[in-house]
Amino acid sequence: MARFLKDRSKAKGLVPGSLVLIGKQKMEKSIIQFMQIDTDSLVEEEVGSTREALEKLNPEAVNWINIYGIHDLDMIQNLGSEFELPGLLLEDILNTDQQPKYENGETYDAFIMKMMHQVGNSNRIHAEQITIILRKDCIITLQERRGDVFNPVRERIRKNKGRIRSHGNDYLAYALMDTIVDNYTILIESIGTKVEDLEDRLFRQMDTKIVEEIYQFKTELNYLRKSIRPVRDFLVLLNRTEDSYIQEKNRKFLADLYELAVQCTDAIELYNSLVSDQLNIYNSNMSNKMNEVMKTLTIFASIFIPLTFVAGIYGMNFRYMPELDYKYSYPILWGIILLLAGGLLYYFKRKKWL
Amino acid sequence: MARFLKDRSKAKGLVPGSLVLIGKQKMEKSIIQFMQIDTDSLVEEEVGSTREALEKLNPEAVNWINIYGIHDLDMIQNLGSEFELPGLLLEDILNTDQQPKYENGETYDAFIMKMMHQVGNSNRIHAEQITIILRKDCIITLQERRGDVFNPVRERIRKNKGRIRSHGNDYLAYALMDTIVDNYTILIESIGTKVEDLEDRLFRQMDTKIVEEIYQFKTELNYLRKSIRPVRDFLVLLNRTEDSYIQEKNRKFLADLYELAVQCTDAIELYNSLVSDQLNIYNSNMSNKMNEVMKTLTIFASIFIPLTFVAGIYGMNFRYMPELDYKYSYPILWGIILLLAGGLLYYFKRKKWL
Amino acid sequence: MARFLKDRSKAKGLVPGSLVLIGKQKMEKSIIQFMQIDTDSLVEEEVGSTREALEKLNPEAVNWINIYGIHDLDMIQNLGSEFELPGLLLEDILNTDQQPKYENGETYDAFIMKMMHQVGNSNRIHAEQITIILRKDCIITLQERRGDVFNPVRERIRKNKGRIRSHGNDYLAYALMDTIVDNYTILIESIGTKVEDLEDRLFRQMDTKIVEEIYQFKTELNYLRKSIRPVRDFLVLLNRTEDSYIQEKNRKFLADLYELAVQCTDAIELYNSLVSDQLNIYNSNMSNKMNEVMKTLTIFASIFIPLTFVAGIYGMNFRYMPELDYKYSYPILWGIILLLAGGLLYYFKRKKWL
Amino acid sequence: MARFLKDRSKAKGLVPGSLVLIGKQKMEKSIIQFMQIDTDSLVEEEVGSTREALEKLNPEAVNWINIYGIHDLDMIQNLGSEFELPGLLLEDILNTDQQPKYENGETYDAFIMKMMHQVGNSNRIHAEQITIILRKDCIITLQERRGDVFNPVRERIRKNKGRIRSHGNDYLAYALMDTIVDNYTILIESIGTKVEDLEDRLFRQMDTKIVEEIYQFKTELNYLRKSIRPVRDFLVLLNRTEDSYIQEKNRKFLADLYELAVQCTDAIELYNSLVSDQLNIYNSNMSNKMNEVMKTLTIFASIFIPLTFVAGIYGMNFRYMPELDYKYSYPILWGIILLLAGGLLYYFKRKKWL
Amino acid sequence: MARFLKDRSKAKGLVPGSLVLIGKQKMEKSIIQFMQIDTDSLVEEEVGSTREALEKLNPEAVNWINIYGIHDLDMIQNLGSEFELPGLLLEDILNTDQQPKYENGETYDAFIMKMMHQVGNSNRIHAEQITIILRKDCIITLQERRGDVFNPVRERIRKNKGRIRSHGNDYLAYALMDTIVDNYTILIESIGTKVEDLEDRLFRQMDTKIVEEIYQFKTELNYLRKSIRPVRDFLVLLNRTEDSYIQEKNRKFLADLYELAVQCTDAIELYNSLVSDQLNIYNSNMSNKMNEVMKTLTIFASIFIPLTFVAGIYGMNFRYMPELDYKYSYPILWGIILLLAGGLLYYFKRKKWL
Repeated sequence: MARFLKDRSKAKGLVPGSLVLIGKQKMEKSIIQFMQIDTDSLVEEEVGSTREALEKLNPEAVNWINIYGIHDLDMIQNLGSEFELPGLLLEDILNTDQQPKYENGETYDAFIMKMMHQVGNSNRIHAEQITIILRKDCIITLQERRGDVFNPVRERIRKNKGRIRSHGNDYLAYALMDTIVDNYTILIESIGTKVEDLEDRLFRQMDTKIVEEIYQFKTELNYLRKSIRPVRDFLVLLNRTEDSYIQEKNRKFLADLYELAVQCTDAIELYNSLVSDQLNIYNSNMSNKMNEVMKTLTIFASIFIPLTFVAGIYGMNFRYMPELDYKYSYPILWGIILLLAGGLLYYFKRKKWL
Repeated sequence: MARFLKDRSKAKGLVPGSLVLIGKQKMEKSIIQFMQIDTDSLVEEEVGSTREALEKLNPEAVNWINIYGIHDLDMIQNLGSEFELPGLLLEDILNTDQQPKYENGETYDAFIMKMMHQVGNSNRIHAEQITIILRKDCIITLQERRGDVFNPVRERIRKNKGRIRSHGNDYLAYALMDTIVDNYTILIESIGTKVEDLEDRLFRQMDTKIVEEIYQFKTELNYLRKSIRPVRDFLVLLNRTEDSYIQEKNRKFLADLYELAVQCTDAIELYNSLVSDQLNIYNSNMSNKMNEVMKTLTIFASIFIPLTFVAGIYGMNFRYMPELDYKYSYPILWGIILLLAGGLLYYFKRKKWL
Repeated sequence: MARFLKDRSKAKGLVPGSLVLIGKQKMEKSIIQFMQIDTDSLVEEEVGSTREALEKLNPEAVNWINIYGIHDLDMIQNLGSEFELPGLLLEDILNTDQQPKYENGETYDAFIMKMMHQVGNSNRIHAEQITIILRKDCIITLQERRGDVFNPVRERIRKNKGRIRSHGNDYLAYALMDTIVDNYTILIESIGTKVEDLEDRLFRQMDTKIVEEIYQFKTELNYLRKSIRPVRDFLVLLNRTEDSYIQEKNRKFLADLYELAVQCTDAIELYNSLVSDQLNIYNSNMSNKMNEVMKTLTIFASIFIPLTFVAGIYGMNFRYMPELDYKYSYPILWGIILLLAGGLLYYFKRKKWL
Repeated sequence: MARFLKDRSKAKGLVPGSLVLIGKQKMEKSIIQFMQIDTDSLVEEEVGSTREALEKLNPEAVNWINIYGIHDLDMIQNLGSEFELPGLLLEDILNTDQQPKYENGETYDAFIMKMMHQVGNSNRIHAEQITIILRKDCIITLQERRGDVFNPVRERIRKNKGRIRSHGNDYLAYALMDTIVDNYTILIESIGTKVEDLEDRLFRQMDTKIVEEIYQFKTELNYLRKSIRPVRDFLVLLNRTEDSYIQEKNRKFLADLYELAVQCTDAIELYNSLVSDQLNIYNSNMSNKMNEVMKTLTIFASIFIPLTFVAGIYGMNFRYMPELDYKYSYPILWGIILLLAGGLLYYFKRKKWL
Repeated sequence: MARFLKDRSKAKGLVPGSLVLIGKQKMEKSIIQFMQIDTDSLVEEEVGSTREALEKLNPEAVNWINIYGIHDLDMIQNLGSEFELPGLLLEDILNTDQQPKYENGETYDAFIMKMMHQVGNSNRIHAEQITIILRKDCIITLQERRGDVFNPVRERIRKNKGRIRSHGNDYLAYALMDTIVDNYTILIESIGTKVEDLEDRLFRQMDTKIVEEIYQFKTELNYLRKSIRPVRDFLVLLNRTEDSYIQEKNRKFLADLYELAVQCTDAIELYNSLVSDQLNIYNSNMSNKMNEVMKTLTIFASIFIPLTFVAGIYGMNFRYMPELDYKYSYPILWGIILLLAGGLLYYFKRKKWL
């Protein structure tokens, strides 16, 4: 199955703006979590519907509606109408192929990003789409499945109610994005360590395993770049957008986040070129090895094939071969053999093949 | 025959603006379809001439004139004079080599695009040129041959008369372009799946078949890029063009279409670099295999050629060879042979060739 | 001889602006043709000097002075003083190395372009420099030698006097440039057809011939790009130049010409990357072939060299070799031989070398 | 361990702006040096705390606070509050992964740069992060460990008190940056000399050693580029920043520094492409060598294997082989052998393999 | 020794702006030439000091002070103070690593360029730094050693006093720069001719010599680009600089010079890609050759090794081998041998190895 562009044929021929889930359904029932952070109080609860969450919003506090599971099209539809989100945005939320993007709506800012997961111990990376919608009075996040992605942020909220409260909803949105980008750094660092470890094996070990790893690194770096670069790009755009819901006092955090994203893409480029170099070096080494093998073969064959011929001559059964009866033939032949072998060895030595 | 640039020698030396069909005639007789979409009524019929269609236009409704077959130069000429289309545009319509382009005319917007078809089950892709002309009172589409390209849109029109009617002619033009770009996504996804499937065979299978597929993927991706990139580029331009016939309220759909086109070109770049990596990896693997083959040969030859020489020595018929008569010569020789073979095996082991 | 940059040492140390012909003289005597196109009359004649042509100019008609041969420095000098062309422009006309360029002079627009010729049936392309000078009252064209380059335009003039007359001198200049660019398209298409034909041979035929053709295609595409890209670039510039001698009403033709030039450079890039891919594929195929050859050798050698050794053992003439006298030695040996050969065949089969 | 992006997992889930040292602690106790340069007097002393330094500041003199060791988070925290440095800057100081950057704060200009050290005699380069903070009344520098990086500047201060004093704090900051960039030049020159020395060995010596060196050069050049390019980029930015603490009269020095940085990045690109070329050339040479080896093997094998077969024929023990008893068989056979060998040698000669 | 970036360690730790010669001293004693060009008179003499030259300046004439040898730091220092040149410029003059640059000073325009010399008959190119300082009242040129670089200009001055006089000091500066750039053209043309000559040998000759030449061409082209590109770039800048000492009437010459520089860099790119293609083609050819060699070996070995085994079988000395006594064994064996050989030949033929 294509990993980089999922099957859109489901959506073919539909009225643009019709809702259809592109990608797999990853959990059974959607869950809606509601969190209300005020200077001294913190509410955390699960709610039954987006309407319920809407009614609980307190414009004086920081409100976070977190939704696990995006396959419930009715719920998404309701979310859209209750929170005044246009159809095209809902479509983007459901299209898990959607490239990371920032949309500056009239009543909201929407951020679509990818959370990256390493698959088990393999070098493979899978992505989960995360949407963050920032409104004046709340933020809404949507994830493909239940996970612990935002747990660190939740922990911090529990400890620092006041700080989050005083910075506002946009700061919370930033904190979530920061968590995602931080995660990129950790992933890149993990690949990077493996790439740099490969260096040591590059000159000692020659097998398909290394080539396979190199290919995996290239593929994963390509994949990461595809997810991170648009984030870097929309962060620049966001900084230039005057009417976004990011408050002036919180912009410096976004500048910092942008720098982190730049660091990520730069590191990806660097590792990418490192891995390309490694493949080139591997190929050169392989040629070196091959050369060595061929030299060994050539030396053995070039010395012993002529000698075997010489021995073959005197193994012939002709009746009239004067040498056969001559008394010193045998030692003389050994002399010839040794001379020949020595001469060839000297020749190969001079050619620096030995 | 050149697939990327067709024989223009027909057009050589003609007055610029003279009409000549570049490319092959693909059907016998042109067909003109007329569709009129109003809030509650829908007219669908075949008309005999463009003039007939012109007379039926209802400025209050959405009007769609669809022409199959562009080889009838008289008909094209008439179309031009009746709908006030300049000669250079007619020339572009007939030049099936024409790169996708957007033209902002005085009384119309013209979009020239390529509809892509996979040829049978092969990896080959062929293109059909489609022209969409948007006027204030109607849209005109021209295709090289009768096909089912726009059928999904027709289906939607039949079901949603009101919606199309209320959005206007420009929305219909958008819907047609969306169908074409959606088709790109599906094609790219199809190539992409094959490219990612190749990954699994890359390390198991070593034959010309893989190289041939890689070459085909590269060629088709090149071809797709050539058709899609100009679409992406003119969509940006279109968004900046203030006096186009796209209404303000429908612009957001074009922004969405642009994003889809970006996604396409990004996916093409990604698959392109993936395929290039695959070829590199294939070559490295091939070197690995070759190395293994050579090692096998070298080990066999380096061990048995010297041994054969030794055996050859004692196959000689010299009368005076003291070893021949010595009682333990034969077992001693076997000892020497085993020692030699063992020594060489040890040597190759230490070189890690075994 | 360097094809891309000719010997400028002739010009070294001269006062800038001194006239010197860089390149070879390609005909004996310069010829000056004069053509005057009016609504109903057409004058075509050879004139003896540029002065004579100057005197015949009719500001009410379209006037075309065409000069074959640029080696007559006096004539060029006279042309310069009579038509008020600055020294640096005359220098450019004589420097057949001159890159295509557009110069917006005070009393003229000058276009220097390259006319491309395929040399016989070879893949080699040679260029002839053509200068087109557009003044308010006439156009002057200079070619290195007498040729039929502009004949198609002449034919059209003879048939369409009125049209050319009504469009003006600038339209004639455009028509000439269009002929040159059209010629590029035909050349690129010719190379393109060959490149795409190569595809079919790429997987069947393995010889230096293919490599040689690939190299020629690359070189010619490089050469074409060098000549076409500046044309594309100056056409953009020309469109932006407000005080050029191109009339407003004729600008749309130049936009069309620009598009054709873009199509040319795009096709060149595409074929270039196609040819590069072909070389890569060729190399991969070559490795495949080599691998196959090596496997064949290895299988033959690895099976028969050990067997020969075994036979050699029993060809030895030791007096005391118990096996020699044993009755079933010979059939047993055949058994061993067949077992050994079978075992190796099985081994190679499992390695997928067979 | 990843050299290009260090383990940020320590920082994961912390409130942005919390202080944490990313990287290793490189010395035991931080040291704070204070230097006060006036027209005729020079104070150099170690102080116990940043507060002590703050109190000693003399706005009439040039003041330099130099801190070795950044692991003392309390001290960094105090530095921040006493000198009004925001949390995000302190975080950057502690993050030794931080890319070089320039920050134009309200009360300061901060420069984060990398000081490069060659590790022993190896080709490996390690980086130490250096932060230079320029305020109106002083400069503060922070280094990861005690070192002699800035000793040359200190020497110059001792000799040229007046000059530094009259140029101001910003000139001192420039002088320090100049020292760092100068150091880059020396490092690049050192790699460059090795790269150019490699040239001479490239055609004489064929071993893995060269490939290994090439790989190291590529890696180090990549690493250097990553550290130098942002410096070049922020120097442009700095020149455009109107409200920086660089005085107008000292700007020309920064322009000069920028030029040096450009020279560095250009030299890196040049060496990079040189090293790539060297690897390509090495591979071509390797193929040449391999070809030579294979030719030698082929010539030996192709001549002697058939001859051995011929000898083998007459070594057979068939009772009825008429040639065996013929008197001149043996010399005739020698004739055949010599003819065969001569023929093959002639054949290989004609193929230019000899 | 690094050719692209010279040892700056001499300059390390010095006060920026201190004078130090980077590079080697190339002559013993500096020489100062003075030339004064007036409408009818021409003064040419050697002067003892820069002061002497300063005193002779005639603002009504064109004055040229030419200095050979830049190692005399006192002289450079005096030049600086007498002609009001800032320290940073003097530093640049002495730093023979300095990239070509243009500096628009308050009382002067300074141009630093590289004069290129082919070293003997080799493909190696060395550079000499030349500084041209244009003031309102004179031009000053500085060269590393006495040479005949500017002799052609001197000759022209002697012949065309009036022309130079009337154009002014800036025209003389242009004429000198034109000489330098013209020299680039000639050098590139010389490399280009060699590159194109290589084409013919590429398919006939296979040795390390070609690879070595290709490497040299790549290196020299890299080197030339590094020297020419900044010239091209500063010529654009110069044209945009309004307050330079280039008079309006002479600007067209600079535009012409810029075009020549563009032509140079374009030719360098073209030759560079040609040389890269040649290396690729060489490698493909090499593979072709190798393949041919391997096929020859494989055919010989695969036919004769099995045959030798067959002969070996009947060379065994077993007492009980029924075939040995059978009368027709020997001819039957020949039949088998011929069949086997024929079968293998047919097999190789079908594989197209023959």
